[in-house]
Amino acid sequence: MSTNNSALIGVDWGTTRLRAFRIGVDGQILDRHASDLGVAEIRDGDFERVLRDIIGGWPTGTPILMCGMIGSRQGWQEVPYRPCPACASDLASTLCPIGTSCGPAWIVGGISTMHDQNVSGARGARKLYDVMRGEETQIVGVASHVGQTLMITPGTHSKWVVVHAGTIESFRTYMTGEIYAVLQKHSILGRLMQDGIGRRFDEVAFLEGVHLGREEPALLHALFSVRTQALFEQKTPAALVHYLSGILIGSEVSAEAGSHLMGSPVVVIASTELTRLYQLALSACGFRDVRYVDAEGAVARGLWKLWQLRAATI
Amino acid sequence: MSTNNSALIGVDWGTTRLRAFRIGVDGQILDRHASDLGVAEIRDGDFERVLRDIIGGWPTGTPILMCGMIGSRQGWQEVPYRPCPACASDLASTLCPIGTSCGPAWIVGGISTMHDQNVSGARGARKLYDVMRGEETQIVGVASHVGQTLMITPGTHSKWVVVHAGTIESFRTYMTGEIYAVLQKHSILGRLMQDGIGRRFDEVAFLEGVHLGREEPALLHALFSVRTQALFEQKTPAALVHYLSGILIGSEVSAEAGSHLMGSPVVVIASTELTRLYQLALSACGFRDVRYVDAEGAVARGLWKLWQLRAATI
Repeated sequence: MSTNNSALIGVDWGTTRLRAFRIGVDGQILDRHASDLGVAEIRDGDFERVLRDIIGGWPTGTPILMCGMIGSRQGWQEVPYRPCPACASDLASTLCPIGTSCGPAWIVGGISTMHDQNVSGARGARKLYDVMRGEETQIVGVASHVGQTLMITPGTHSKWVVVHAGTIESFRTYMTGEIYAVLQKHSILGRLMQDGIGRRFDEVAFLEGVHLGREEPALLHALFSVRTQALFEQKTPAALVHYLSGILIGSEVSAEAGSHLMGSPVVVIASTELTRLYQLALSACGFRDVRYVDAEGAVARGLWKLWQLRAATI
Repeated sequence: MSTNNSALIGVDWGTTRLRAFRIGVDGQILDRHASDLGVAEIRDGDFERVLRDIIGGWPTGTPILMCGMIGSRQGWQEVPYRPCPACASDLASTLCPIGTSCGPAWIVGGISTMHDQNVSGARGARKLYDVMRGEETQIVGVASHVGQTLMITPGTHSKWVVVHAGTIESFRTYMTGEIYAVLQKHSILGRLMQDGIGRRFDEVAFLEGVHLGREEPALLHALFSVRTQALFEQKTPAALVHYLSGILIGSEVSAEAGSHLMGSPVVVIASTELTRLYQLALSACGFRDVRYVDAEGAVARGLWKLWQLRAATI
């Protein structure tokens, strides 16, 4: 139980994780809860019950602000994507109210970006969209109002985001984490490494993978070396786990290493575990000016910032 | 039942399929059986029973020659890889005898190739192996003894093979088919296309994928467009199936399109279904001199050729 100095309950509700923060009047985190009840786990659609459970015991009537996949078609209520460029005020002005018995609640909309892809031999230019839900709130929690930054939110679907003077200008998604997970669980490569999952991090094997991911442009070919390294007993099952991870992260990071954005300062918003991997990979691929920010703190700050901006405009 | 004009029973025993051919004294296929009892399905290790069942009714005592994953660590008996370069005579001279009650039997060994990978920043050059089992026999069935050919065996693990004067010089594997299967069955992309699996081939969507796979060097990024094309209702679930397939095959084919081998005649050894996809992708990526050979006929001819070469040397 808690005294009622709560100003906001912030909720980061993604595909696989649910995190709730009780935030005080000065933006400080007073309390936090987390669970594995991500959007993909709520099969009966009863999001309200799950929310009530996770914030149970916190003062009732406190406003609730949620971000992430909870605003997707598979979530509680679909909130449209807002096209780039988008700044914190844009996001704050389009929070979507949602009826709950837990208190007044809103969902932060995701954002989208669009590139014209010119296609020789096909029927003219095509529009290729990219989307995020949740990462925009982490970025709001971190972005400064001056200069240009390249922000990276590694994970299931890693985002590389160009932020200019506090505005999200454009971004690209890499399916690194999801491809890693499906290969580890369901492919012939995964079967070779079952005994190695959960073992101590093997930095040498990880970096070997990063170098291959960087130097071999054909990822579909590079991945097969996980199999041959096992066949010719060049790596233990534990080393293969980190070698595979290295190939995929090396492929992602090196794809961006050639861009004109490489000179911008870089901010990586990640968990401790992913921070370590991206530190090694970014350094191996030549990124120099890199800062690391904890993802959980970033999203809580972002929710608080959006809430304050909203309060200032009504 | 059959009269005993059989000279050889050829068996192509891969990870997911088992095919048996009764071959006459002039190399003609007299009869054939096929099943889904690939090596991965034989969990009790009783390969002999499965073989007896599939060739049951064919004259007993006929020599049996097998190729494919049946010679792998997960198969009946592990037969070592023979390093490249390797010609048909090399393969014929190292057939591995195996004891069965079905008749005298041998297994064709796979082949391996090795590249030195020079790694800046890591500990010197590393050896990267590549391997095949089964495709070498298809190639023996097709290869001519003059000139240089680039042979492609599309599938779960596609091989691009340089064949010079009948000798396999080197090759590269692409995990195209396996990545397609795991993404379709186990990823967020797959969930978007469940209603579309098995529908009519969508050539426009497939070619859009091929163009993206060719033009976007970062495959991990290109794949995410399968999701956004669904989100923004740019494609039906059926179209997404073929779009995903196009991205992966486009990525594979374009990786080889830049090589110095592009001027060589190309032979694709494939099923009817894969032939159609590779015809479209190879043409879109600029390959001109391409011939298509049925994979089943190729492997039967290869087994017969190896058997004749063996008979000639003993």
